[in-house]
Amino acid sequence: MESVERLANKIKNKVVLAKEEIYEIIKNYTDNLISDDDFLPFLRAVYKYGLTDKELFYLTMAMVETGKKLDLKELKNVVDKHSTGGVSDTTTLIVVPICASLKTNMLKLSGRGLGFTGGTCDKLESFKGYKTELPINEAINLVKQNGGCILTTSKELSPADKKIYALRNKSGLVDSIPLIASSIMSKKIAGGANIIVLDVKYGNGAFMKDKKSAILLGKKMKKIGKYANKKVIFVLGKMNQPLGYNIGPKLETMEAISVLKGESKSSLYKESVKLATHCVRLSKHIPYFIAKYLVKKSIKNKSALNKLKKMVSCQGGSLDLFDEKYKKPTLIVKSQTNGVVKGFNTKEIGEIVANMGTVKIENDDVINYENGVITLQKINDKVKINDPLFYIYANDMNMAESVKMQLLKCIEIK
Amino acid sequence: MESVERLANKIKNKVVLAKEEIYEIIKNYTDNLISDDDFLPFLRAVYKYGLTDKELFYLTMAMVETGKKLDLKELKNVVDKHSTGGVSDTTTLIVVPICASLKTNMLKLSGRGLGFTGGTCDKLESFKGYKTELPINEAINLVKQNGGCILTTSKELSPADKKIYALRNKSGLVDSIPLIASSIMSKKIAGGANIIVLDVKYGNGAFMKDKKSAILLGKKMKKIGKYANKKVIFVLGKMNQPLGYNIGPKLETMEAISVLKGESKSSLYKESVKLATHCVRLSKHIPYFIAKYLVKKSIKNKSALNKLKKMVSCQGGSLDLFDEKYKKPTLIVKSQTNGVVKGFNTKEIGEIVANMGTVKIENDDVINYENGVITLQKINDKVKINDPLFYIYANDMNMAESVKMQLLKCIEIK
Repeated sequence: MESVERLANKIKNKVVLAKEEIYEIIKNYTDNLISDDDFLPFLRAVYKYGLTDKELFYLTMAMVETGKKLDLKELKNVVDKHSTGGVSDTTTLIVVPICASLKTNMLKLSGRGLGFTGGTCDKLESFKGYKTELPINEAINLVKQNGGCILTTSKELSPADKKIYALRNKSGLVDSIPLIASSIMSKKIAGGANIIVLDVKYGNGAFMKDKKSAILLGKKMKKIGKYANKKVIFVLGKMNQPLGYNIGPKLETMEAISVLKGESKSSLYKESVKLATHCVRLSKHIPYFIAKYLVKKSIKNKSALNKLKKMVSCQGGSLDLFDEKYKKPTLIVKSQTNGVVKGFNTKEIGEIVANMGTVKIENDDVINYENGVITLQKINDKVKINDPLFYIYANDMNMAESVKMQLLKCIEIK
Repeated sequence: MESVERLANKIKNKVVLAKEEIYEIIKNYTDNLISDDDFLPFLRAVYKYGLTDKELFYLTMAMVETGKKLDLKELKNVVDKHSTGGVSDTTTLIVVPICASLKTNMLKLSGRGLGFTGGTCDKLESFKGYKTELPINEAINLVKQNGGCILTTSKELSPADKKIYALRNKSGLVDSIPLIASSIMSKKIAGGANIIVLDVKYGNGAFMKDKKSAILLGKKMKKIGKYANKKVIFVLGKMNQPLGYNIGPKLETMEAISVLKGESKSSLYKESVKLATHCVRLSKHIPYFIAKYLVKKSIKNKSALNKLKKMVSCQGGSLDLFDEKYKKPTLIVKSQTNGVVKGFNTKEIGEIVANMGTVKIENDDVINYENGVITLQKINDKVKINDPLFYIYANDMNMAESVKMQLLKCIEIK
């Protein structure tokens, strides 16, 4: 289409696009007035040449404008938190109840598993009966009542994003900072929170591979937020190994529960405390160290744990999981050598677990909530021959054996 | 008027009034459809027999409905603070900037001097040029900008209260807990804050003489607030001597400045810290001891002082007073005996200072901001002959001599 080519050329030649031009192309593409093939040159130009900050803001807002915007005015100081995704990244299940127990309102729109990363909503559904699909007014009432609610991202928010993401995915245009930034921020802005804490992960278990790109992405999102009159901060998180020990919907939920029970001071605990502290300090306008004290106390005195129970039962979920013990694993992978753990192929581990049926690949897939892997070692841990490296929870021994072979290629011991 | 008599009889016979009956009589009286004389039986019945909590709530809301209600929705978690009044009670000038510096929004509607108590707005006008009469949208903008704004109570808020108060005053019906409670709460509810901290003073320098009545008044106001869906707490404050050292508009403002400069840890300091701590903890949902830490720090690091300067200059006031030194007093009253200070006639001291032209008696009175008294001793202080008891700042020596004679009757040294 001629006009798209024209815009693509402008981007290439660094001629600044007008707000109206950006709004028009995004609206037309979302309304199917422009085909995927015709839209691609625009996307490729953004991918290749980038946009100015103002153009990127207009792109984001154009995406927001294609859908509904949540009106959270009746809730005060609503905080949203977003992680760019990683392996065993279950902070949402920990951060939201902590904040809610400290009267920091969170209405958290969460997604399903994607690629090699698990989805918060899939994890929540390990509480039998838990409803993640709620009408927004019901979610607002739950926030009023409990201080927090986690639900699936409404399809009505930034529909442009869904369409653009699918096209990026099939055209190899996923790893683009402006396209990632506008994708995330369009959903966050439509989500209505006025404070947004972004957890930008980098490393071999995250979408961003290096720290420099993570900072660049964080800054771009912060800039978009500033133009949109939102308080946005970003926190960097290194991910060269799984964040927690457990990978898989139910296993990750169980680990989140154990963090809230105060049984674990792992990196998942530390990361969650850090994120919750930022949410609380921004919402209450108090210094970091005071917010941190409150956050840690809410774990110590079990008020965050009780809040999660409240949230789960208000959304129809069973509380059985809170007292469930780990089952015997299908298979235990043991070390075949003495040495020190030097590293993980984190993304591959995420993919292995996703392929165990824990992440939907096709829309009509049924998720296997119980499958997954527990990683027992962290980088720099010393291991001896026959020390356990992984617990595998699989459908059957065949699957477990295949997973074992794959996992052994994902850990480096020297 | 027959219907008023009927209501009065119902109150006497403990027949519960309907909401509509209460709304009607208050509206009709405010609209001058009922004369003072005709309205009096209703007021007398309330004075004598009291009301149920629900009736008292309806009375309060009926008063609110006679006027405007401020819509502060665009400000988040607005806190109001109200003192039932006392001598040398300058906490507002200290509490509002502390809270504002800690991002606890305060839109404080303050009054003029009344009887033996000074008025916050009169005190603020000691900053030359300070405008206390502001349109409400301007005040809201100032709160957005600075976190706090102090202005005169709008005449459009609860006009019923003004009329009823005048009638109570000339009919000897002032000291009635339900009438005081509905008067204060009608203005606070119309004022639009969602958190209200009430400072209920009792003792010989306050309207409530004993602790029991103060608690009763506090509880009634809290109940009204609860029905009106406001977070209300009350704090008791003993006042059997002036709260601070200084009495008189400019002198009290100077003392507030010295508290914010960290130069004074007097009972005015302690009382202000206590009230500000409650405002901050309720607005931020944090524990008392943490809020107290933040409050004290905002004094220590001068952020509250700088906030007051900001507020004053935004409302057109000169900052000269912040660096002004105390003038030589017109007269120093010295002790005529050795002994220990056993007590003060606090209310009388307030009246003496009011009569020096520091409180408007008639509407067209001009306030003398500079006049007043500094009390140098507190209860249990040891004094020797010729130790200074009071500094008098008066128009001339005649006035000063007369004030001296009166003051000497107001301090008991044994």
